[in-house]
Amino acid sequence: MNGTLYGIGLGPGDPELMTLKAYRLISGAEVVAYPALEGGESFARSIAADVIPDDAVEVKINVPMAVERGPAQAAYALGAEDIATHLEAGRDVVVLCEGDPFFYGSFMYLYARLSDRFETEVVPGVTSVTTCAAVSGRPLTARNEVLTIIPGPLDEDAMRDRIASAEAVVIMKVGRHLDKIRRVLDSLTLTENAVYVERASLPLQKVFPLEGAPCEAPYFSMILVTKGQDPWLN
Amino acid sequence: MNGTLYGIGLGPGDPELMTLKAYRLISGAEVVAYPALEGGESFARSIAADVIPDDAVEVKINVPMAVERGPAQAAYALGAEDIATHLEAGRDVVVLCEGDPFFYGSFMYLYARLSDRFETEVVPGVTSVTTCAAVSGRPLTARNEVLTIIPGPLDEDAMRDRIASAEAVVIMKVGRHLDKIRRVLDSLTLTENAVYVERASLPLQKVFPLEGAPCEAPYFSMILVTKGQDPWLN
Repeated sequence: MNGTLYGIGLGPGDPELMTLKAYRLISGAEVVAYPALEGGESFARSIAADVIPDDAVEVKINVPMAVERGPAQAAYALGAEDIATHLEAGRDVVVLCEGDPFFYGSFMYLYARLSDRFETEVVPGVTSVTTCAAVSGRPLTARNEVLTIIPGPLDEDAMRDRIASAEAVVIMKVGRHLDKIRRVLDSLTLTENAVYVERASLPLQKVFPLEGAPCEAPYFSMILVTKGQDPWLN
Repeated sequence: MNGTLYGIGLGPGDPELMTLKAYRLISGAEVVAYPALEGGESFARSIAADVIPDDAVEVKINVPMAVERGPAQAAYALGAEDIATHLEAGRDVVVLCEGDPFFYGSFMYLYARLSDRFETEVVPGVTSVTTCAAVSGRPLTARNEVLTIIPGPLDEDAMRDRIASAEAVVIMKVGRHLDKIRRVLDSLTLTENAVYVERASLPLQKVFPLEGAPCEAPYFSMILVTKGQDPWLN
């Protein structure tokens, strides 16, 4: 009998924000797989480090940094083959995913290759979106407000249109797109409504009004914009 | 010294989807507060039931069902006073919140009344949005896709515009708005791309293609629409 594939959301970074279910599945795992950029440390693995059993087999998927998609997809294809070998031998495989597996997660590249052939379960996790709201003390959405989540790489005009028409906006993966995002928010006179959050829930977490944000943002940074139409107290 | 107020996200319903942090704070709580509709059972309390200590003091906030906002807000004002009495006596208060406290949660009505006066910490939780994707096996967003989250009560024209311009859409709180949502999706020829999820992660969970969905939807139901522009395998 084949093993089961688990895609496990680990939450935004603080190991205590993983779910009880993630904890149970990882602490009982025979095989643990995770992506690592360019063979370096894996952020997902670092969140789960204290929970992974000492004798678990680890499958590291070395994802090259490249603008084109081909090299990364080749790495996921190779990783999927490794994982399939374990599943065919009847061993469950737990894939560690930062945040939530189906929310801008690389797990879907494994899911697309394996879920037709093997029983698969996805365990959702806390996303950086609501963590960003929690640590900045800014409720995201109430009542009939629409929330729009925008990846930082989106082009400038499209980003402006999306932000203009939303009540609450979270911009993910800010990184090198910070200057563009500042321009967009300035042009909409929304800079005062924006908060910048870096490494939410981690020891090096930073939270600033956008105006006081650093000039250089890491990949794991976000900007939250709330327009505050709805007076919560009335 | 005053106690600390904690707003704790419990996730979508399966108690195993609460975070380790939520578990720790609830299991050590002296005072536990939660909203209950019309004095009935509290969904939030039911998720945490096995974790609440037997000797914890419970503060139940009876929220009346009413179209106007006044009666509910009066109930939250009263609940905030109750909670403040405990905090002033130096007791921490844990507020139980289904999903995430700052994501369409009623916790913000307490937060708005108490966070200026008392130390407050918000613990994010798994939302029904990513749970819905997980249980239906539909990745939400990849790469540069924009995700739009829409409350079911939004009016029909606004809903149509928002859905037309998004790559991935989650419609929350479907309930009595199901017919309207079907009309909107039909008019955009998106019905085939839509999946209906009821009570995600709970024992009575239902997942259907929208075409096969029941005629009556409970409040805790959602519709997920993915347009699938991005071929994940390339």
